[in-house]
Amino acid sequence: MAERESQIVLGLDPNPRALWPVSALAGTGTGGPAEAAGRAVLAHCRALIDATAQACVAVKLQLARFELLGVVGRTVLGEVAAHARSAGLLVIADGKRGDIDVTAQAYAGALLGGVQTPFGAIEGLGADLVTVNPLMGRDSLAPFVTAAREAGAGVLVLVRTSNPGAEDVEDLQLTGGEAVWERLAAIVDELGAPEVGDSGLSDVGAVIGATAPGHLARARELMANATFLLPGVGAQGGRVEDLAPAFAPGPAGGLIAASRSIAEAHLASGGQPAVAARAEAERLRETAWALAT
Amino acid sequence: MAERESQIVLGLDPNPRALWPVSALAGTGTGGPAEAAGRAVLAHCRALIDATAQACVAVKLQLARFELLGVVGRTVLGEVAAHARSAGLLVIADGKRGDIDVTAQAYAGALLGGVQTPFGAIEGLGADLVTVNPLMGRDSLAPFVTAAREAGAGVLVLVRTSNPGAEDVEDLQLTGGEAVWERLAAIVDELGAPEVGDSGLSDVGAVIGATAPGHLARARELMANATFLLPGVGAQGGRVEDLAPAFAPGPAGGLIAASRSIAEAHLASGGQPAVAARAEAERLRETAWALAT
Repeated sequence: MAERESQIVLGLDPNPRALWPVSALAGTGTGGPAEAAGRAVLAHCRALIDATAQACVAVKLQLARFELLGVVGRTVLGEVAAHARSAGLLVIADGKRGDIDVTAQAYAGALLGGVQTPFGAIEGLGADLVTVNPLMGRDSLAPFVTAAREAGAGVLVLVRTSNPGAEDVEDLQLTGGEAVWERLAAIVDELGAPEVGDSGLSDVGAVIGATAPGHLARARELMANATFLLPGVGAQGGRVEDLAPAFAPGPAGGLIAASRSIAEAHLASGGQPAVAARAEAERLRETAWALAT
Repeated sequence: MAERESQIVLGLDPNPRALWPVSALAGTGTGGPAEAAGRAVLAHCRALIDATAQACVAVKLQLARFELLGVVGRTVLGEVAAHARSAGLLVIADGKRGDIDVTAQAYAGALLGGVQTPFGAIEGLGADLVTVNPLMGRDSLAPFVTAAREAGAGVLVLVRTSNPGAEDVEDLQLTGGEAVWERLAAIVDELGAPEVGDSGLSDVGAVIGATAPGHLARARELMANATFLLPGVGAQGGRVEDLAPAFAPGPAGGLIAASRSIAEAHLASGGQPAVAARAEAERLRETAWALAT
């Protein structure tokens, strides 16, 4: 982040109905609709990465969009991740998984370091960070934390999300006076405590929606050492200018995720999609870096 | 369920390190470790389905185990689902997804009816039921309910899970005196209310761990019309005999999921895996049906 002077995460949520024109040609060729859509999605993601990588530190891959491609989805996902790495970007696998221990281990293997089998080693996605859902409690999170530590990666736990429905469960008040999300924050702080580095940051971070900046200062109190992934800037209504508390531990305290606001910048500004996306990513980068330093 | 006099769901969580011997040969052949493991997993799942289908009404596919197979995972998943259907079983996609609205739509498309794209229609998995995680609230669940209604399928919402960590978040007490899981139950009841059929059951059900039967009667009070998916019988410690409240609306009120207790029955009883699995599935079926009718 220091090298690139950036906290910007390029969100890749490729919708086959809203790809950049450059991708249309890639969609032609052999195979069925899934193969054609897969090629087009790959071309779109590569173009978006090429246009914006210099202003970003990571990509956030929305796993749902790749799963929607059916049998080719995992192949396309791996190719997009490889392209992001070749552009010097970290890879965040945004799948929000959460399940009992043995199943959490399997998800962690799939997204991080893979698995040894009697048939040989099967590679994982090799993500640098994975998002996880804490509803099922500590034993559903621990396998991800363990696997991430082995792989030199990190975990981002949903704490207070960016969508309106966050009020339905995450904001409920507990008998002690705190909200459910504040209790989730305490779990994040506890899981990350054994691995706080010289940077003052641990390997267990939190997802905190940029759409409810009122919660940010409190979240930082509860999780002094957590990296915050901050989705919801742009299309969902969040503003970079409101995110200062995320950067209390330093410029690496917050990762600002923007998807549609970058990929669809040309719809607002006109011009070439790549040019508009680059300009928007650079604008976000500059605003965030100024705020954080 | 009436036709088969069964509430038993065969859980398929294939671990490449614990497959039935019949699968070993299938693992040989061309391709890398993922292809070999994929063929072996498919052979194992087919054998398990063939052995137990007569005693069961559905399979529950643990998506994590298929994702761990990498690029071949989705193909193997589809083939296992097809084999289950050909054996007359419903298909439950157990992925516990939960995300913001547009992402939830993508997950629902992947697991249920697929998606229309400019490149043609991409097929979904065609599941009959999908498990979802409600932490992010109503707007993260609604797209699944809508897509399931269009596809003639149903949704199973995590309410009170079978793992020890359920105490960490789901069991927290709210200011009104209820637990978080009881609030989740109220959301399930509300989402299912528009579609309660002649059976007295709606298309929105709940996942209630069989390991905490003390909660079952209360869960049934809060969700009179929900089908309960009851995991945790066997390896996790749950007993069929304790599940009677699930069947208050009738014999279709509960689906009893068993994975390791069926697939690994031969480790306890000796003999051929298929014979032991069939006997265990039949024992569970008989016990549950007697309890429910």
